[in-house]
Amino acid sequence: MRTRPLKVALLGCGVVGSEVARIMTTHADDLAARIGAPVELAGVAVRRSSKVREGIAPELVTTDATALVKRGDLDVVVEVIGGIEPARTLITTAFEHGASVVSANKALLAQDGAALHAAADEHGRDLYYEAAVAGAIPLIRPLRESLAGDKINRVMGIVNGTTNFILDKMDSTGAGYQEALDEATALGYAEADPTADVEGFDAAAKAAILAGIAFHTRVRLDDVYREGMTEVTAADFASAKEMGCTIKLLAICERAADGGSVTARVHPAMIPLSHPLASVRGAYNAVFVESDAAGQLMFYGPGAGGAPTASAVLGDLVAVCRNKLNGATGPGESAYAALRVSPMGDVVTRYHISLDVADKPGVLAQVATVFAEHGVSIDTVRQQGKDGEASLVVVTHRASDASLTGTVEALRSLDTVRGVASIMRVEGE
Amino acid sequence: MRTRPLKVALLGCGVVGSEVARIMTTHADDLAARIGAPVELAGVAVRRSSKVREGIAPELVTTDATALVKRGDLDVVVEVIGGIEPARTLITTAFEHGASVVSANKALLAQDGAALHAAADEHGRDLYYEAAVAGAIPLIRPLRESLAGDKINRVMGIVNGTTNFILDKMDSTGAGYQEALDEATALGYAEADPTADVEGFDAAAKAAILAGIAFHTRVRLDDVYREGMTEVTAADFASAKEMGCTIKLLAICERAADGGSVTARVHPAMIPLSHPLASVRGAYNAVFVESDAAGQLMFYGPGAGGAPTASAVLGDLVAVCRNKLNGATGPGESAYAALRVSPMGDVVTRYHISLDVADKPGVLAQVATVFAEHGVSIDTVRQQGKDGEASLVVVTHRASDASLTGTVEALRSLDTVRGVASIMRVEGE
Repeated sequence: MRTRPLKVALLGCGVVGSEVARIMTTHADDLAARIGAPVELAGVAVRRSSKVREGIAPELVTTDATALVKRGDLDVVVEVIGGIEPARTLITTAFEHGASVVSANKALLAQDGAALHAAADEHGRDLYYEAAVAGAIPLIRPLRESLAGDKINRVMGIVNGTTNFILDKMDSTGAGYQEALDEATALGYAEADPTADVEGFDAAAKAAILAGIAFHTRVRLDDVYREGMTEVTAADFASAKEMGCTIKLLAICERAADGGSVTARVHPAMIPLSHPLASVRGAYNAVFVESDAAGQLMFYGPGAGGAPTASAVLGDLVAVCRNKLNGATGPGESAYAALRVSPMGDVVTRYHISLDVADKPGVLAQVATVFAEHGVSIDTVRQQGKDGEASLVVVTHRASDASLTGTVEALRSLDTVRGVASIMRVEGE
Repeated sequence: MRTRPLKVALLGCGVVGSEVARIMTTHADDLAARIGAPVELAGVAVRRSSKVREGIAPELVTTDATALVKRGDLDVVVEVIGGIEPARTLITTAFEHGASVVSANKALLAQDGAALHAAADEHGRDLYYEAAVAGAIPLIRPLRESLAGDKINRVMGIVNGTTNFILDKMDSTGAGYQEALDEATALGYAEADPTADVEGFDAAAKAAILAGIAFHTRVRLDDVYREGMTEVTAADFASAKEMGCTIKLLAICERAADGGSVTARVHPAMIPLSHPLASVRGAYNAVFVESDAAGQLMFYGPGAGGAPTASAVLGDLVAVCRNKLNGATGPGESAYAALRVSPMGDVVTRYHISLDVADKPGVLAQVATVFAEHGVSIDTVRQQGKDGEASLVVVTHRASDASLTGTVEALRSLDTVRGVASIMRVEGE
C-alpha cells in the first residue's frame, strides 16, 4: 500500500460535511485498505470559523474556500455546500488546480452538469455525485455502470423524502395536507420554508440528473415538467383507495415509444397498491427502473440525512481516490444520444378526473361526448348523486397530456359541469 | 473514439450466452459510444457446433474453448458455461493469454473466488461477476463500490427465484410444498431436479460471495450454514400469518456485535409482513442491506433469466472494456479484514417453535423450565388444546442457535412433549 496519503479538502461542514469528516477519522484504516493509500483531511472550508467542530483540528478550518481549492496539492475536493454559487466556481477552480471533485449538489448538477463535466474532462479530473440523487441509495453508479450494457426505458421514483412523509401521513391517517405538513415540520422532516420540496423543485432537479444518466442524453432542469403536491386532498386519497391505489409524488423519466425523444416530469400520481413504490413509507426514497434486458429493478433506502448522504459521498471518495492511484478517470458524462426532450403535452398516461356536475339526465352523455371529441377513451365512470349535485369520477385509458388538457378545458365550459374537483395521473400499471 | 474494436469471446451460448451475443449486435452502437470503442464478437465456444445459432456467424463458433482463450488477441472473455470445470481452467488460461474475464458463475466464484482473483491480479486483468448474484440486480458494484466508504453490518436477501416462487405460491394459495413445486416445474421456474434450489445450495453460493464482498473478508462456501425449504408446510404459513409474518428462504450475512467475526447462513425464516422483503413476490429477488451510515437499503429485481443475466454481464463488459482503454483495472478482491467466520451455533436470532404436547396441567411449566435452564427467554406462548392433544407455540427473544439447539434436544426428551412440529427462525425485526 502507498504510504503517502491522498489529500482531501472539504467544502462545507454542516450536517453532511461533519459526518464525512467523522467517518474519515473513525474508518481511516478501512478507507486506506479499500483505496490502497491513506486519506488525509487537508482542509475544511466553512462560513463561520468561530463554531467549534468536534473532531476536526482547528488549524484545518478556514473561511477562505477559494484559497483552499487553489492550494495545488489536493487530490479530491468534497463539495457539500449546496446551491449554485460559490459551489460552481469552487468546483471548476478545484479542477484547474489538480483536484477531482465529489459533490452532493443536485441543484448545481441539474442546472450546470454539462459545463461541469466538460471542465472535469478538460482537466482530466473526476466528477462524482452519487449523493446528489436519493441520498444513500446507490443509483447513479448502477444506472451509469451496471446498466451500461442495457437500454433503460423508464425511471420512476420517489426522490423526495419530505413529500413522501407528508403523503404517507395523509394516506395512513386521513389527515389533510396542512395537518400532515405541520407534523413533518415539527418532526424535522420539512424545512421552515418547504417550497423546494412540496412544489417539486427538489425532485425536478433529481429528475433532470436521472434522465440524463439513464438515457445518455442531456436533460436540463428547464426541460422537466413540474407540479407540486400542495393541492392533494384527503378526498383524492379516498378516491385513490377506491381504485386500489395510493398517491405519491413521482419523478418520471421516459423514453418515447419511438425511441427518438424522452420526457421528464414531476407530479403527484395515483399508483396501484401492488406496485413496489406504493409500499415506500415515511421519508424513504425508492427508484423503479425498467430496461429492455434487466426488466424491472428497484432501489430503496433513505433519501436524505447526514449519515446516509455521507455514505454516498464516501463511496465516491473511495472510487475517485482509486482512479487517482490508477492514473485514470471514471466514466464521465455520457450524452452521446442527444435525444430531443419532448414537452409535457406529448406524455401519454392515464388520468383520474373528478367532476362536480348537475344531477340531471343527460350529463353523463354530454361529458362522454367531450372525451370522445378529444380522442380520450374512457375506462370507467362512477357517478354519485345527492341533493341535485352529483360527482362524476372518470378514469381514462392512455391518452396524451395535450388531449387531456383539451378535454378538461372543454368540460369546464359545459353548463352542467360545476367544477373540476381534481385531475390526477395514474401511473405504474 | 477508438476505431479498432475490442475483441470479446463468449464461452457458452445457452440462454444467457445467446442473449449476450444478441444484445452485442443489436446495441452495438450504444455499446461503442459508452465504451469509447466498438466491441467485436471474436469467437463463441460451444459444446455442440451443429446447432444453428441465430445471428451468430457460423465461422465464429468453435467447440475448442481452450484454443479460443489461448488466441492471445482477446480483450475480454465472457464465461457463461457455469459449473467448476472446464470454466475454472478456461478463465485462468484467459488471464494468462491477455484477456480480462466477465463471469456469471456463482458456484465457481463461491468455491474458488480467492484463487481466481489472485490469478487476475497476477496478470493485471479484471474479473467481474455482477451476474453471479441476483441476476440483473446491480448488487456487487453497489456493495463493493458505492458502499466502499461505509461499514456494512448485515446483508439479508431473497437470492433464489425458484424457491421464492414456491414459497409465495404456498403463502398466497395455501398450497403444500409439493403442489407449489409441481406448479413451479410446470411453469419452468424449477428445474427437473430442483435440489440445488430447494436445498439452498444455490443461495449458499451467493451468500458466500455476498459476505466476502460486504465484509471485505474471505468466506468460503463451506463456511455457509445451509438449510433447505422442503420441510416448510402449510401449517408453518398459518403460524406465520398469526404472527403477522410470511416465510422466505433467506441468505443472511452478519457481522457479529463485537465486529471481530461474521456469519453466513441460508434457511427459511419468518419475517414480518411490514418488512420490505416480505412483499417480494413470484420469482423476484431482493437484497436488504444494513450499514452504519447509509442505514437500510434494498435492491430488487429479476434474479435469473436469459435477458436479465445478460444485462448484468454486459454492464460488466462495458466496465472491463473501459478499464482496458484506460490501461487500468477495477477494484479486485478486498479481503484485507480477514475476519473469522463463526459457526451457526454463534448466530443470535429469534425462534418460533411448535410443539405437540400432552393436554394436561403442568406441561407449560415443564416446557418453560427447559427454556429457562438453557438461557432462552420466552417472548410469547400460545396453547391450543383438543382431545387430550395440545399444541404449544413458543416465540423466543433473541438467543444463540446453540442454546436453542440445546433447548430443543431437552424438550424432545420430555415425556409430555410428543414431538417438535417445527422450528423456524424469525428475522427482520
